[in-house]
Amino acid sequence: MTDFAATKALFHIPKGMIYLDGNSLGPLPKSAPARVARTMTDEWGEMLITGWNKAGWMAKATEVGDRVARLIGAEAGHVVMGDTLSIKVYQALAAALEMRPERKVILSDSGNFPSDLYMAEGLIKSLGQGHELRIVAPEEVEAHITEEVAVTLITEVDYRTGRLHDMKALTAKAQSVGALTIWDLAHTAGATDVKLAECKADFAVGCTYKYLNGGPGAPAFIYVAPRHADTVRPALSGWLGHEAPFAFDLSYRAGAGIERMRVGTPPILALAALEAALDAWENVDMAALRARSQSLTQLFLEEVEARCPMLTLASPRAAAARGSQVSFAFENGYAAMQALIARGVVGDFRAPDIMRFGFTPLFIDEGDVLSACDIIEEVMTGALWDRPEYHARAAVT
Amino acid sequence: MTDFAATKALFHIPKGMIYLDGNSLGPLPKSAPARVARTMTDEWGEMLITGWNKAGWMAKATEVGDRVARLIGAEAGHVVMGDTLSIKVYQALAAALEMRPERKVILSDSGNFPSDLYMAEGLIKSLGQGHELRIVAPEEVEAHITEEVAVTLITEVDYRTGRLHDMKALTAKAQSVGALTIWDLAHTAGATDVKLAECKADFAVGCTYKYLNGGPGAPAFIYVAPRHADTVRPALSGWLGHEAPFAFDLSYRAGAGIERMRVGTPPILALAALEAALDAWENVDMAALRARSQSLTQLFLEEVEARCPMLTLASPRAAAARGSQVSFAFENGYAAMQALIARGVVGDFRAPDIMRFGFTPLFIDEGDVLSACDIIEEVMTGALWDRPEYHARAAVT
Repeated sequence: MTDFAATKALFHIPKGMIYLDGNSLGPLPKSAPARVARTMTDEWGEMLITGWNKAGWMAKATEVGDRVARLIGAEAGHVVMGDTLSIKVYQALAAALEMRPERKVILSDSGNFPSDLYMAEGLIKSLGQGHELRIVAPEEVEAHITEEVAVTLITEVDYRTGRLHDMKALTAKAQSVGALTIWDLAHTAGATDVKLAECKADFAVGCTYKYLNGGPGAPAFIYVAPRHADTVRPALSGWLGHEAPFAFDLSYRAGAGIERMRVGTPPILALAALEAALDAWENVDMAALRARSQSLTQLFLEEVEARCPMLTLASPRAAAARGSQVSFAFENGYAAMQALIARGVVGDFRAPDIMRFGFTPLFIDEGDVLSACDIIEEVMTGALWDRPEYHARAAVT
Repeated sequence: MTDFAATKALFHIPKGMIYLDGNSLGPLPKSAPARVARTMTDEWGEMLITGWNKAGWMAKATEVGDRVARLIGAEAGHVVMGDTLSIKVYQALAAALEMRPERKVILSDSGNFPSDLYMAEGLIKSLGQGHELRIVAPEEVEAHITEEVAVTLITEVDYRTGRLHDMKALTAKAQSVGALTIWDLAHTAGATDVKLAECKADFAVGCTYKYLNGGPGAPAFIYVAPRHADTVRPALSGWLGHEAPFAFDLSYRAGAGIERMRVGTPPILALAALEAALDAWENVDMAALRARSQSLTQLFLEEVEARCPMLTLASPRAAAARGSQVSFAFENGYAAMQALIARGVVGDFRAPDIMRFGFTPLFIDEGDVLSACDIIEEVMTGALWDRPEYHARAAVT
């Protein structure tokens, strides 16, 4: 039995705040500052350059990768940390396109996070081989997986609506027509019970600053299926992906398996924070997490719908078709979200009109959901958002 | 007058250690742990997602870039932090090759750091346009800058020998034949008085974990000359390089100037450590730094040569032709370096036979140099390195 009261106690949530934005930036694990301090003073400070061996820094990228692997249903030894999600998208996409040289279509959907699409655009221009980025509506992805498609580039959960793609069905469809799959797990790693190996995904990428609580700008990860791991060519062929980085050869030879997806020097301080964050997951059963996430989002959805008729549900109604967030459309969504934040209910706003609420069972419970619903009801039925101070937009929302 | 006794006091050097490996990993700035702790507890912990605005996280990549710009003689507003050095090499190279579509040669030298060469190799394969990575001896670079060359990819200081390229002359030669220049400043940023703007460099890249003391895996930087900044196409077109990242458009429009070289979410904890490290540079005059570096390396070189005839100088004899390191070749260099490290003199070893000693005036003074020379003399003349324990090699050196 996963003890979610125990995991809740591991996070710092500011007094009076109900934090429903863990899908944007997870909260601070209480143990993280001491862990990072130790890495800085005892390791960097005292060991200096020898920390790469003595403190095991060089192995962190794959060691931490193994811990993430369990949370996303990946085989151990096939996930590595590093860089940002955008870079990891590029690596996966460049590798996949080379595996299907005769095909020119990258299939994605309009609910994908824009950076994935931008990275694809950039790669297509660099390659100059006439690839096409085909963007269809989320519900039309399956029908568009044809023999033209080299690779699908899909974020499993839509960052705006929370709509969950069927990874198993889409991957099976892709494989039936000889297409490869890249799954972006930004909004699923730590939020649902992802089953990469079971679904036979080819590649997956994700970030760790959302549901995995690694901190602002925490390192990303990449998964390459074992059947491809020793044959894919790394387009970003940095020295740490070399078979023997410290031989300092003048030409590149790809390292074994997932090691070749490493690029440059790993971000040790950020990895230390992430290690502390991953401690919270040690005894978490991912099926239990998914069940709890579904019950929390369902409760929230039903309560808000019942109390706030002016809000239009923008997420799928069925829990099985959602990730761990619930979104509502509201014309004055920006101002309404500001009014909620002023009262301690922190969600976020996504243009043009989406109010987004994330639920991570590690630190959100039923009591939080009901308290949040009370405040949402008060703000919405009282039109408390209709004040000038809630309408001024900051540069970054 | 730069006060180097004052800067020395800002760093933590373990008791009894003379740290001559700041060219591999700089030591811990004493103020860095508290700075990072503050970022974690007061910003991440309390502000959560609003830290991107309230704590100014979103602007850190360019704000810190401006601080680095001064140290490398770059125009303010033209340096941005992020990713790793290898990724920044890729960005610069991809941009440069597109600016010279009719030319197919990337010119580099055998003293370049291998990762730069590997990234070039990877890009060439991806492009499939018949580019050639031409690697010549360091002293032959100038003669090989011809009208065939699209871009030179040169690390200003050779990581093994410390040999310093003449940035001004090579850049002028490149420009005279219509070639572009990318300067890798890994071993010069914070070590010499780099003058990017004065030399009219086109691109520069570097890391911050060596002489800039940002910590293991600290973020890299990239410089794009103002004359190219608004026209280069970013091959790694991530969302934070978009003109309006938070508009979440489905297609990419490059941001203004150096902003377009941003890719993904910036590593905030690592940037906090780097900010603390950069505080040490606030009152440092780079010409004074260069003068002091030359005097320290010259003293070391002369003392070691006089005392240890078995060591062969592998660095240029003239201070003006060196960066801030001195290297000696010695057949049993690995064991000798282990024996030195056991006695508190920490340099490093680079295959096949290079003993490398770095001098950063921020925390190394004449007293350190002379003490190090005493220990080196003792170890070398007494053949104290000839013990089995110094010959066992770790995986990472």
